[in-house]
Amino acid sequence: MSDVTTTTHNDGQIFGATGKVRIETDSLGEVAVPADAHWGAQSQRSLANFDIGTETMPAPLIKALGIQKQSAAKANMDLGVLDEKLGDAIVRAAGEVIDGTLADQFPLSVWQTGSGTQSNMNANEVIASRANQILTGQHGGKEPVHPNDHCNMGQSSNDTFPTAMHIAAGSEVIERLVPALKHLHAALDDKAKAFADIVKIGRTHLQDATPLTLGQEFSGYAKQVEYGIARVESALPRVLELAQGGTAVGTGINSKAGFAEKFAEHVAAATGHDFVTAPNKFEALAAHDALVELSGALNTVAVSCMKIANDIRLLGSGPRSGLGEIALPANEPGSSIMPGKVNPTQCEALTMVCAQVMGNAVTVSVAGSHGHLELNVFKPVMIYNVLQSIRLLSDSAVSFTDNCVTGIEANTGRIDQLMNESLMLVTALNPHIGYDNAAKIAKKAHGDGTTLKEAGLELGLLTEEQFDAWIVPKDMIKPRD
Amino acid sequence: MSDVTTTTHNDGQIFGATGKVRIETDSLGEVAVPADAHWGAQSQRSLANFDIGTETMPAPLIKALGIQKQSAAKANMDLGVLDEKLGDAIVRAAGEVIDGTLADQFPLSVWQTGSGTQSNMNANEVIASRANQILTGQHGGKEPVHPNDHCNMGQSSNDTFPTAMHIAAGSEVIERLVPALKHLHAALDDKAKAFADIVKIGRTHLQDATPLTLGQEFSGYAKQVEYGIARVESALPRVLELAQGGTAVGTGINSKAGFAEKFAEHVAAATGHDFVTAPNKFEALAAHDALVELSGALNTVAVSCMKIANDIRLLGSGPRSGLGEIALPANEPGSSIMPGKVNPTQCEALTMVCAQVMGNAVTVSVAGSHGHLELNVFKPVMIYNVLQSIRLLSDSAVSFTDNCVTGIEANTGRIDQLMNESLMLVTALNPHIGYDNAAKIAKKAHGDGTTLKEAGLELGLLTEEQFDAWIVPKDMIKPRD
Amino acid sequence: MSDVTTTTHNDGQIFGATGKVRIETDSLGEVAVPADAHWGAQSQRSLANFDIGTETMPAPLIKALGIQKQSAAKANMDLGVLDEKLGDAIVRAAGEVIDGTLADQFPLSVWQTGSGTQSNMNANEVIASRANQILTGQHGGKEPVHPNDHCNMGQSSNDTFPTAMHIAAGSEVIERLVPALKHLHAALDDKAKAFADIVKIGRTHLQDATPLTLGQEFSGYAKQVEYGIARVESALPRVLELAQGGTAVGTGINSKAGFAEKFAEHVAAATGHDFVTAPNKFEALAAHDALVELSGALNTVAVSCMKIANDIRLLGSGPRSGLGEIALPANEPGSSIMPGKVNPTQCEALTMVCAQVMGNAVTVSVAGSHGHLELNVFKPVMIYNVLQSIRLLSDSAVSFTDNCVTGIEANTGRIDQLMNESLMLVTALNPHIGYDNAAKIAKKAHGDGTTLKEAGLELGLLTEEQFDAWIVPKDMIKPRD
Amino acid sequence: MSDVTTTTHNDGQIFGATGKVRIETDSLGEVAVPADAHWGAQSQRSLANFDIGTETMPAPLIKALGIQKQSAAKANMDLGVLDEKLGDAIVRAAGEVIDGTLADQFPLSVWQTGSGTQSNMNANEVIASRANQILTGQHGGKEPVHPNDHCNMGQSSNDTFPTAMHIAAGSEVIERLVPALKHLHAALDDKAKAFADIVKIGRTHLQDATPLTLGQEFSGYAKQVEYGIARVESALPRVLELAQGGTAVGTGINSKAGFAEKFAEHVAAATGHDFVTAPNKFEALAAHDALVELSGALNTVAVSCMKIANDIRLLGSGPRSGLGEIALPANEPGSSIMPGKVNPTQCEALTMVCAQVMGNAVTVSVAGSHGHLELNVFKPVMIYNVLQSIRLLSDSAVSFTDNCVTGIEANTGRIDQLMNESLMLVTALNPHIGYDNAAKIAKKAHGDGTTLKEAGLELGLLTEEQFDAWIVPKDMIKPRD
Repeated sequence: MSDVTTTTHNDGQIFGATGKVRIETDSLGEVAVPADAHWGAQSQRSLANFDIGTETMPAPLIKALGIQKQSAAKANMDLGVLDEKLGDAIVRAAGEVIDGTLADQFPLSVWQTGSGTQSNMNANEVIASRANQILTGQHGGKEPVHPNDHCNMGQSSNDTFPTAMHIAAGSEVIERLVPALKHLHAALDDKAKAFADIVKIGRTHLQDATPLTLGQEFSGYAKQVEYGIARVESALPRVLELAQGGTAVGTGINSKAGFAEKFAEHVAAATGHDFVTAPNKFEALAAHDALVELSGALNTVAVSCMKIANDIRLLGSGPRSGLGEIALPANEPGSSIMPGKVNPTQCEALTMVCAQVMGNAVTVSVAGSHGHLELNVFKPVMIYNVLQSIRLLSDSAVSFTDNCVTGIEANTGRIDQLMNESLMLVTALNPHIGYDNAAKIAKKAHGDGTTLKEAGLELGLLTEEQFDAWIVPKDMIKPRD
Repeated sequence: MSDVTTTTHNDGQIFGATGKVRIETDSLGEVAVPADAHWGAQSQRSLANFDIGTETMPAPLIKALGIQKQSAAKANMDLGVLDEKLGDAIVRAAGEVIDGTLADQFPLSVWQTGSGTQSNMNANEVIASRANQILTGQHGGKEPVHPNDHCNMGQSSNDTFPTAMHIAAGSEVIERLVPALKHLHAALDDKAKAFADIVKIGRTHLQDATPLTLGQEFSGYAKQVEYGIARVESALPRVLELAQGGTAVGTGINSKAGFAEKFAEHVAAATGHDFVTAPNKFEALAAHDALVELSGALNTVAVSCMKIANDIRLLGSGPRSGLGEIALPANEPGSSIMPGKVNPTQCEALTMVCAQVMGNAVTVSVAGSHGHLELNVFKPVMIYNVLQSIRLLSDSAVSFTDNCVTGIEANTGRIDQLMNESLMLVTALNPHIGYDNAAKIAKKAHGDGTTLKEAGLELGLLTEEQFDAWIVPKDMIKPRD
Repeated sequence: MSDVTTTTHNDGQIFGATGKVRIETDSLGEVAVPADAHWGAQSQRSLANFDIGTETMPAPLIKALGIQKQSAAKANMDLGVLDEKLGDAIVRAAGEVIDGTLADQFPLSVWQTGSGTQSNMNANEVIASRANQILTGQHGGKEPVHPNDHCNMGQSSNDTFPTAMHIAAGSEVIERLVPALKHLHAALDDKAKAFADIVKIGRTHLQDATPLTLGQEFSGYAKQVEYGIARVESALPRVLELAQGGTAVGTGINSKAGFAEKFAEHVAAATGHDFVTAPNKFEALAAHDALVELSGALNTVAVSCMKIANDIRLLGSGPRSGLGEIALPANEPGSSIMPGKVNPTQCEALTMVCAQVMGNAVTVSVAGSHGHLELNVFKPVMIYNVLQSIRLLSDSAVSFTDNCVTGIEANTGRIDQLMNESLMLVTALNPHIGYDNAAKIAKKAHGDGTTLKEAGLELGLLTEEQFDAWIVPKDMIKPRD
Repeated sequence: MSDVTTTTHNDGQIFGATGKVRIETDSLGEVAVPADAHWGAQSQRSLANFDIGTETMPAPLIKALGIQKQSAAKANMDLGVLDEKLGDAIVRAAGEVIDGTLADQFPLSVWQTGSGTQSNMNANEVIASRANQILTGQHGGKEPVHPNDHCNMGQSSNDTFPTAMHIAAGSEVIERLVPALKHLHAALDDKAKAFADIVKIGRTHLQDATPLTLGQEFSGYAKQVEYGIARVESALPRVLELAQGGTAVGTGINSKAGFAEKFAEHVAAATGHDFVTAPNKFEALAAHDALVELSGALNTVAVSCMKIANDIRLLGSGPRSGLGEIALPANEPGSSIMPGKVNPTQCEALTMVCAQVMGNAVTVSVAGSHGHLELNVFKPVMIYNVLQSIRLLSDSAVSFTDNCVTGIEANTGRIDQLMNESLMLVTALNPHIGYDNAAKIAKKAHGDGTTLKEAGLELGLLTEEQFDAWIVPKDMIKPRD
């Protein structure tokens, strides 16, 4: 027993607050684990060997491992290779992984073996322990339910972990991200409609340009988000393919024929999403291009949101010395002394998220590029980044919508003032008094710091009635008939 | 004339080798341009003001500007707003831009105004000059065809340039990249079939694992490329949308109603691709998410190719001290002294391209994230990177296919030797002699440096006949029935 | 009281498990906070308004805020503007932030206002509450110690937060990263020395090449790490500059002259590091180039470690079908059936970390590029990424060193075998029998699959004695005299 | 001769316009090269085998190869191993590579073998041909000067190419980039001084904040550039290390002892820069961390310039509906109709360059991370990106300085107006009338849309004289005494 050691992880947190341990074994020998923990020897070794950072496997991945183990047990029972009594206990224990009851049993770091083997074993050990507890009242150990022989039956970490990655990523996109983006889209679209008649100065190169409506401006944002939804959805077909059934190297060695297909059906039923078995398991183990592709879509959504949030804080800048065309809701004190100082904090949170998502896409690409032969061993870092990006984009889209977009109001006084002072409206005079005269008016107004009307009248090139009849901004926001 | 200056660009190259100039004008005054050049004042100013780098606007973008100008002229004639005689001359001159005849008339740098205004004016000036030459025998000037009034009729740089970007990117994907990837896919697929019966050792974590066929290994590569094609194609719908008709800020001011739709029809006819007018022009001018999305797809293809080319050079490593399972064609002297030293130079060129494409995707994302209000002013850098990535992936995919993949041969002797020496085959004994005995054999073979058969016989755990009957690698490459 | 609401954050965790609340106020009104919490109204609002993700402000940043508040209080006391009794209580309370006693009082998300205002207020509120408790026995409230008037005296979030960023990043580099890299360097250097006499085949293009020693190979790794230390240290001068004293926009409005300098002295004393006041506070608030620069250095270290860890797993690949020149320690079961299958899991964890650090550098660059005028509002995301990169590189460098590098052993048998079989040694014959004859030997050996010696003898071009005298790999590992 | 083929490259350009060829040979056989070309068989094969993209090896790299070959010849003559007559001819021919006379003899693609072998051979072949021409009047061939035996004496592509990379990158930084950044710094510093007394509104979160001077704002930009110079210079020590002398794998096999040191001295003398021989040649061949590090510095400069140029276009936005605090020079027509519309085109060119440099840094990092054992085979892509980034940053810094920064003028009228309308100045009243009364004034002014003075007078809280005495913006731009 001299080589049995307790281990610490994550800044010294001792697992097993009581200090009581039990002994579990693996092929390398005995390991002391916290007495009340469900996990076993291999999880405990991982805690000792990978004392790196504070990031543990994300919750959606743990949930997906629960779905994966449950579906595998069902498929094995379907195929008659797993004893029903043991199988039912596994299904029930896996259910508790899915519903989060066993969340504290998954303490492993993201920074572990690149195949995710240790998290797969963490799931196997915890589910076996809990299944044993269900069946015998005693948790831990390998009887009657064995972590490998039963929980991992017909499986390998090499197909299990990427399967969980795809279940997690696909489900999070469908259940979290797409609804969040639709929520944002709806709010932007509402504003596009509400602001449809507010004609304002346009700006290109950040310089004054011809007018458009505030609604048209917001319609562009809404369209970006609409396309963002299409983008993440267009990546889904390949994310919904599952590696399960490939086992160690993609051949399916040690699995029963038909397992892959039955498994995928159970996952589809459990999640309600269109998961299918991957047509080529070699690709599914050795490359994770589907997550690189998804990261590319998430990156594009981030780029879109960066533009939208940047524009909104620019339009809301002021209150006196900025553009000031819209007012953002005040959610917290901006400045204790100055009323009207509303910091665009939701824009800031969202754009910070966008920067994170853009960098995460690079991490995923670098990781995806470094696979070797039958296995890519950057699986944990890839799914960690993909899930973080999905979560952050989703949460910040909702927060931005509810705490900013829905509360945006048009400062119509300011909008009118800027538009009416604009020199760009002079373009409307060309057909009436000719380019050269129009330019004279604009030049004079610019030089004198006056309005176009003042300059035009002073130059005697038109009357006030003519000016008012000819310069009609709301006629300048569409093609001519 | 004192403010008329000749200008130099691109490392001192003097435009107008003769030194002869003619005078052109724009709203800022007179400019000397090379006497024999078609371009005019604004192009010449750009040469002087943006003496940055050596990168000029890529050829597919120039061709796309030709298509854009030609289609605009046709649409304007359809709508009855452009004189047919002038229009026909524009169509003909634009045709010479399309076919490359006027390639040397587009000397402007990528690093210019971010709206691409100067390249739009370059196209307007060159086409007007050439059209004038067609009509009058005299090139240059603004009569009878005016660069702005006729060549740019109903257009703005702000919709013209992104239209050309999409025409160029979409066409290059369809005409160059997809065929190149199909070419690569076919070659990999051929190898997958040709190598279907060659059973070899698998490797996970770069460590020996259970067997698979060399054909299965290549089938994974083929699948990656097949999906790569699907990925770039899934980005196309949004790339095939054209901004034209949005003019200055997306409203379409100064264009004739119906222009956008007629224009898109002409582009579709000219290219044979499914270009359509963008449903929201505000998005189309202010954001270039479609190119960010496309870059994400190109990045994914690059990640795939990095994996494939890395694997192939690893499998081909040797000749004596590497894996040596395949032989790559020798295209050039690898070493003057050592026969058999074949450097995987095509893998190297391809993986360098992949690194470039991965970085280009970041450039495009950063550029896409920095738009302001009605206009993104990173247009030239975005299209430069997108077109470079497309070109490089296409060319290197073809080069890699023709100069490497098609010539790959299996070193079956080496493959057999490695597989037969492998300890991993011991897994096949489990059902026959039990896990513990199988492990004993493997452990002994590893310790003694012998084969499994030798160890098994020495331990007396099985006979040679049994060994040969039970350990059959070709039965280990699929699920059990 | 109707607008007083409790709030939830971070996946539904209710702050204040008892449900008991007390009322705190800010300029927007009343807010219910958990009765036993030290934080106040603004922190609580942030929890409600930024329910984004699971990432909270990293511990080193919280510690740095403690150092910042303590040093500010001391500087204000030095300058005679802060009452000593209040100041001493602040110093003591801030000390508890520094030592981690109050760690659970900092629940705010990374994804908040981009200036970090809310975390600055979190620190002000917690320290004021705790100081009030020290002075009156009653926590919370603003009497006698006020969060703004005393804890934030002469400060703004705009200088406080970047100051804390630099304190945290600089301290973590000095205290955590540099020692970890030195630890790794020492282990690699030890191996370089231990392996100094083991001559082995070199490989270029992954192809067999001329020999070198295993020690020379490891000396390259050691040098990479040595330079990595120099790289992060070369970024320090600018990281050690502190923004404090710039207050709202860099001018120092509302601070007392001399505050910035005295403050920096206190930070230097508290940390033992060479922190100084930034010579230009406008740069220090509006840009965070120093963290972009540091990220570039971290990225370079990551690139180095990627190469090193990749090489080590390649050299350790096998046990039978890889290069197999070194043996890595077995820290956990690699495969339950195959002895000798040691997965390079520490290499995998390290390379995953490297991918993360490479992506984080992009996040930091994107964030750094998006500042506006007097303030960059991507501060939290920047420091979150920088601190994660430092932590991960540090931890994984130590883990990789202790669990992998120190246990690496040379498989000298395999090394000798590969070297002696190599055809590349033939280069040593050139001076003796001429290039052409040497090439003949190599070509024959390659074709026949024999050794050079066998081929040479068979061709009658030299004797066994000559071969053994002329081909001496250990003479091929340095320039000729 | 049947297997002798002419080859095309780079979009079909036929080398040897006359169609006349001569025959050169390498170890694979005969190759037809253009009769008048200096290059030989291996260069020609590369043209055929790597028909990828349009990017050829950058001019500074070719020049560096000239310096490298010249210095190697001198070192070999110093060591007495190279015949003086041949050596002198090589020195003279290499001189013509250095001065650009032979620029058209280097047609090879960036996308070739990853060791740059073919460009090394291109240099060897061209220099040998030209040296032979000098000595015999006949170009081409291998007599009396042999491309390998003499031009490549004691060298390998593996040390030659990275040596040229460092010579090129180091020289370009010192000769091109640092002067350009100093030029930009001086211009910004001049503006900081010229604008030192112009007090203006500050902006944080893009919202109105306390005042500062326009000079202070520009001083921040100047400081960023000053630090940028320090950053690129801090990367130089490792860039100035030369790999030469490592030959094939870093051991220096086939070179003469002392060659590395003498070589470095010649390079230092030729360039005038502090080049030294790398202390560890294994690191110098197998990793290119020095270029990754340099890219990190260039990336930081890009991030700085992005901020500066973005700010300047924001400050110059308008003319009527933007911030309008500064006026940028008008270098080209912004709009044909609207005087005063000055597009910030130099800002746009610069920020596009910054996006490119940021992506290039990722390319270089990815490339640097993928080395294998004794050789990194991403050399050409790394140096291509590093040199492009240096060139673009340098050129655009100069262009931005000369065509934008030096012409910036303050719109003092607008600046005064915005500052005087600002509500933020109310903070100066706190010491005189108390926080609550000051807030009342600000709130009233905000609500009524009036000035602070109007609101204060209307509320009867102070007199006009008091207001003018107490609210003095120029006293709000520094700490209080």
